[in-house]
Amino acid sequence: MLRSWLEDANAPDGDFPLNNLPYGVFSRDGEMPRCGTAIGGYVADLAALERAGLIEAPGFDQPKLNAFMAQGKAVWANIRAQLMDLFVENGNPALRDDADLRAKVLISQTAVRMHLPFEVAGYTDFYAGRHHAENVGTMFRGPENALPPNWLSIPIGYNGRASTVVVSGTPVRRPLGQIKPPEADFPIFSPTKRLDIELEFGAVLGQGTQMGEPLTVAEADELIFGYVLLNDWSARDIQAWEYQPLGPFQAKAFATSISPWVVTKAALEPFRLPSPSRVRPLLPYLRELAPMRYDVHLEVHMRAAGQDGDNMISRTNTCELYYSAAQQLAHHAIGGCKMEVGDLLGSGTISGPDKGSRGSLLEITWGGKEPLLLEGGVERRFIEDGDTLTLTGWAQGPDYRIGFGVCEGTILPAPSLRPEWCDG
Amino acid sequence: MLRSWLEDANAPDGDFPLNNLPYGVFSRDGEMPRCGTAIGGYVADLAALERAGLIEAPGFDQPKLNAFMAQGKAVWANIRAQLMDLFVENGNPALRDDADLRAKVLISQTAVRMHLPFEVAGYTDFYAGRHHAENVGTMFRGPENALPPNWLSIPIGYNGRASTVVVSGTPVRRPLGQIKPPEADFPIFSPTKRLDIELEFGAVLGQGTQMGEPLTVAEADELIFGYVLLNDWSARDIQAWEYQPLGPFQAKAFATSISPWVVTKAALEPFRLPSPSRVRPLLPYLRELAPMRYDVHLEVHMRAAGQDGDNMISRTNTCELYYSAAQQLAHHAIGGCKMEVGDLLGSGTISGPDKGSRGSLLEITWGGKEPLLLEGGVERRFIEDGDTLTLTGWAQGPDYRIGFGVCEGTILPAPSLRPEWCDG
Repeated sequence: MLRSWLEDANAPDGDFPLNNLPYGVFSRDGEMPRCGTAIGGYVADLAALERAGLIEAPGFDQPKLNAFMAQGKAVWANIRAQLMDLFVENGNPALRDDADLRAKVLISQTAVRMHLPFEVAGYTDFYAGRHHAENVGTMFRGPENALPPNWLSIPIGYNGRASTVVVSGTPVRRPLGQIKPPEADFPIFSPTKRLDIELEFGAVLGQGTQMGEPLTVAEADELIFGYVLLNDWSARDIQAWEYQPLGPFQAKAFATSISPWVVTKAALEPFRLPSPSRVRPLLPYLRELAPMRYDVHLEVHMRAAGQDGDNMISRTNTCELYYSAAQQLAHHAIGGCKMEVGDLLGSGTISGPDKGSRGSLLEITWGGKEPLLLEGGVERRFIEDGDTLTLTGWAQGPDYRIGFGVCEGTILPAPSLRPEWCDG
Repeated sequence: MLRSWLEDANAPDGDFPLNNLPYGVFSRDGEMPRCGTAIGGYVADLAALERAGLIEAPGFDQPKLNAFMAQGKAVWANIRAQLMDLFVENGNPALRDDADLRAKVLISQTAVRMHLPFEVAGYTDFYAGRHHAENVGTMFRGPENALPPNWLSIPIGYNGRASTVVVSGTPVRRPLGQIKPPEADFPIFSPTKRLDIELEFGAVLGQGTQMGEPLTVAEADELIFGYVLLNDWSARDIQAWEYQPLGPFQAKAFATSISPWVVTKAALEPFRLPSPSRVRPLLPYLRELAPMRYDVHLEVHMRAAGQDGDNMISRTNTCELYYSAAQQLAHHAIGGCKMEVGDLLGSGTISGPDKGSRGSLLEITWGGKEPLLLEGGVERRFIEDGDTLTLTGWAQGPDYRIGFGVCEGTILPAPSLRPEWCDG
């Protein structure tokens, strides 16, 4: 652990030691949102540090990280080094020894509201968790067709809806839509009855590409600024009826939540893992010449409506992913698709091999057949109104963590039905 | 026809009579792009009219229409009325009688470059052409599964890639990707060999919605600012291997071309058509209480590499669409998806019942089995490098047309292969 003069940053189980320095956007009541970093239990106001002349000025006095990210990896490295120097024990004393400035710069995380940290240019969701693909495939298409024939060759992905990517804490309204009950010939119009989460790891692009100019995997990795926790909320009944032949659409479009702090690739460097062994050789454009995955512990917690305490309902690890974000990005750009600063790439749902490590309720309750038993005897098959779902995650070092904070959302009831939507 | 003092606007077969007044973004060499309208063979510089105080100032001195569109339908109607008054015979003489101002405002269309007319917030592609769905379904899944079971209930759509929506005239690079030859066990890496067009009609949203707040079909229609021609370029071999289970991705992500002029809903009002008869009743949230489709004639022209002249290879009409853009939008928002100013909704490929009215080469050549014979004995199964494809369209009035101009693109060869993408 890099020790800081700010004692609060030195807790071995804290999410935000000096090694981390993630980026986010925050405000207090009545203030303009601006960029900050998390250190211990504080947000450090990067716009204030910029104004004080203590770090270079890459434009932190803005409500989005995009302008900073767009400046590229030399600036990312430079600002990280300057921040480390300001906060490390025996470093630059300019902040440490200036009580007035410290009071301006360091704000308790409990006093701020976090905003969506970047403008989401495009949101793409992948499908790189093998256990998840096998579980869902078994339920939707039967065990003999569980893993689609292309799964071992392609980092399968689809375009998601960028406009409804929201920051942790934003309430999520239960969607209305078309559902075809198994026994019915025709669909009905109804709020979803099978509302679910998907536990994912999201890569954030800090650099883009030109249209028509594909990448190698190594070049793709260079475009990635950092990672967030991502919950790809899903309406399973709407999905089952709509997804053939063109993929998920309204089943996923109502909301995608992300954690407010973008953990940088730099902070995660010590936690890289080599590629998994390949069942089938990959085409050369997808081959990794260096470790591209990460060892990040992940948990899902559920607080049922009216409950006080959380129930941990799953724990797993990003190492369950068969394809890295760099591979997914190389595939994304291989046909010439233009990638942009602020693009968000969801990993796909991350499930481990056993029931306690599955990343969706669909898998945990096996399509609702094996209900979850929560504290106090509460049962859940899928998410009910008022339930709160929380993702957490961290990379575990020898005496410190690189934490992601939380990615949380509470479900609101579906919109009231309007007469125009009803028969008669 | 509304007659103008600008004689050029009164040609009965011109795309841009005074009844039309579409919006676009243009520039001459070295100038900043700004908003204009097309009238006869001219672009009228709306930023110059704004500066001269002849129309109100909704922000036409910008390189995108978004700010204008965001002001809503009262402003759209107001500006249209002011423009009509300035150009109509016996209207406001302020422009007609001022030669200096006319020289500033009216620029020949041959002297300008057209730009992407609006910032594409999100791009969604639908699948509302029944003949197309049946033709493609027959080729991909066999005649007994041609029309997916949900097709008659859902305006099926998927999220496309907004970053590669380009204006007519932008060259399109042939994409690289994974292709699995029918006889092979594993995919190969190759430029697409089955490059295709999709003839579509695109709706442009001038207003958005709040997340979690669905619409009725009538409300959805109110959000639409206008329409463009849209070519959803497609790589059929990449598509066939990748599209299951999550839909088309890299087969469509390399480019989508649109015509430069957004033809307003106001100009198309006289050309509304009632809904088609429904094979199966629609759920009430999709029912149309007023005519929502349009009668727009469409053509596809192909100029093979090295050829001088165009070959008309298809003609059809937007009346072949089973779902209107308003219905597609109502479906898009029904789960609470937030819609935004600048969202683009592709209709899906528009094919008529016979071979001469099909909207893709896949259908015209029936998967390459029945080659097209072009002028001079040139044959085409799919698009070759150097070929130019052009879409045109217009609504035909008694003595005038509401034209869309052209949506055109020429294919460049695939990127050179890099050593990292190759074996050994």
